[in-house]
Amino acid sequence: MAIVLDGMGSDTYPAPEVEAAVLAAEELGEEIILVGQQELLEPRLKAANPRGLPVRIVHAPDVLEMGDKAVESTRKKPNNSMAVGMELVRTGEAQAFVTAGSTGAAMFNAIKILRRMQGVLRPALVTPIPTRTGRCAFLDTGANADCRPEFFTEFGIMGSLYAKHVLQVENPRIGILSNGEEAGKGNQLVKEAYPLLANAGLNFVGNVEPKEVYNGHADVVVADGFTGNIFIKTSESVAKLITDVLREEISTSFARKLGYLLVKPAFRRLKKMMDPSEVGAALLVGINGYVFIGHGRSDARALVSALRLAQQATKANMLDALRAAIQSQLAAATPES
Amino acid sequence: MAIVLDGMGSDTYPAPEVEAAVLAAEELGEEIILVGQQELLEPRLKAANPRGLPVRIVHAPDVLEMGDKAVESTRKKPNNSMAVGMELVRTGEAQAFVTAGSTGAAMFNAIKILRRMQGVLRPALVTPIPTRTGRCAFLDTGANADCRPEFFTEFGIMGSLYAKHVLQVENPRIGILSNGEEAGKGNQLVKEAYPLLANAGLNFVGNVEPKEVYNGHADVVVADGFTGNIFIKTSESVAKLITDVLREEISTSFARKLGYLLVKPAFRRLKKMMDPSEVGAALLVGINGYVFIGHGRSDARALVSALRLAQQATKANMLDALRAAIQSQLAAATPES
Repeated sequence: MAIVLDGMGSDTYPAPEVEAAVLAAEELGEEIILVGQQELLEPRLKAANPRGLPVRIVHAPDVLEMGDKAVESTRKKPNNSMAVGMELVRTGEAQAFVTAGSTGAAMFNAIKILRRMQGVLRPALVTPIPTRTGRCAFLDTGANADCRPEFFTEFGIMGSLYAKHVLQVENPRIGILSNGEEAGKGNQLVKEAYPLLANAGLNFVGNVEPKEVYNGHADVVVADGFTGNIFIKTSESVAKLITDVLREEISTSFARKLGYLLVKPAFRRLKKMMDPSEVGAALLVGINGYVFIGHGRSDARALVSALRLAQQATKANMLDALRAAIQSQLAAATPES
Repeated sequence: MAIVLDGMGSDTYPAPEVEAAVLAAEELGEEIILVGQQELLEPRLKAANPRGLPVRIVHAPDVLEMGDKAVESTRKKPNNSMAVGMELVRTGEAQAFVTAGSTGAAMFNAIKILRRMQGVLRPALVTPIPTRTGRCAFLDTGANADCRPEFFTEFGIMGSLYAKHVLQVENPRIGILSNGEEAGKGNQLVKEAYPLLANAGLNFVGNVEPKEVYNGHADVVVADGFTGNIFIKTSESVAKLITDVLREEISTSFARKLGYLLVKPAFRRLKKMMDPSEVGAALLVGINGYVFIGHGRSDARALVSALRLAQQATKANMLDALRAAIQSQLAAATPES
């Protein structure tokens, strides 16, 4: 097996990528293909890989910059590292693709190059989120800002397989993110999606409020991509605000700093919960290939963790299971778009 | 002036309500009317008000229970404390109404008894939220799960007046909650609302992501009531998860507890930011009367703070300003529903 790592993805590329490629080649025992500008990657890789672990570079001359508009720039720069890397997955030269670059560009490239899975209405972005009791697969966190009720059934099926194959949850519980737990709560979309999910043969637990999501009442939570994206970003912002305020306040006196030294281990569990390398990269499900999208501020450890997820999903044959499920359940249950 | 306080609202009624009524009568120098079951309230008030401050009880025989469905129970129990209290506002016997009871029941009662303001398409719930730099008026946090783009203009106008009169912000900056800052980001609703808000003669700053909201980039943030409710509840859940995890971890060893004693003052700013009595009650805007809805777990201090907001809004004649603004701007700008 070979896994592609986008060499030009993270906010501080290519240092974390080069380091992660070498670490992952050793830990996972797989070939890692670093895609990006050869002249940039080669000298760094040489220095980082004295033992000659199986890391190889594939040249991609175009670079997608942070400020670029996803669709426009991906079109103008057809030989960007994401496109070149996904092409390796399409041809079967590699089995999975991992990037810490722009979500929009990754989605656009993935749908263009790897294509939607047959029978799938809408690919969705699954993000594993930390809860009080473990992790939960949350989708859609940004691929489809506007959804129709039948997409939710598909999200439920795809999320369920993700939870089973990636999070190792038997018989995952599926909930709809809503503003109230009772059936009948929600906006029009949620109200119409509810009976569809209830009748999809899934382990449906009904509506879940944000509180229930974080208390671990569901293993899979579905939402439209706008609400899902707001949910994820609100969670990140509040966590950051709280830790920033605490850090600022702690640094104002010597006694507080001293106290912090004693209390610091208590922050470890929290840090672990919020750490991108623990939480894991998002997966774009519903396309013909494994595309994992990590946080822009991923470090080498976070990227290794994303590569590990990619290996795990590939070994578990998640895509084949998904294809089979989509064919049998979905094609029968919902109309083609 | 007289302000009505629902005596049967909070999770632990009537103790916080009775205490708050007496405290507010003293602090605000206004008459407080406690509405609820006389036999329950009277002996407690007698004990709590030895100095005979201006607190009076108005009897309401029906009690809305926590598990009750808002619409159904409000219909079946026409003499509930909210209905009786709002009737006092409608007749002019009192100027504002404050409750820590169910938001759904308060909205239903308010629209039934006090009625929509003429020209207002949809009343909305404004919640003041803490940010890094102060407070921001967020609406709609739950009154309208499904919105049309023109509601956003109205929310902008109402939120703007709230920010001016209640939060004392001159020329408030208005943003739309979205999944990206750039114009053109968002779901269909946000995309259609954007040009309407941009042309409404408001100080419109465009789209704001959750990060920008918490960094204080807008004084008023508008969203549909479903997304707004998810935003508020997600924020609360994440804050609670973080503080719970820290509390659990701190209590596991003596050294950590000791460290916490030293570091504790650093948590004060955070606690203040998250304290319902500091953040303030939500206001239902767009109806003919001041209806403030506090958190169910409000204590006496939080209720006094809500009563203070009510006094402030009333003294600033926010409703008259709103009526004038709605008449001049809105009636011309958007079609009647």
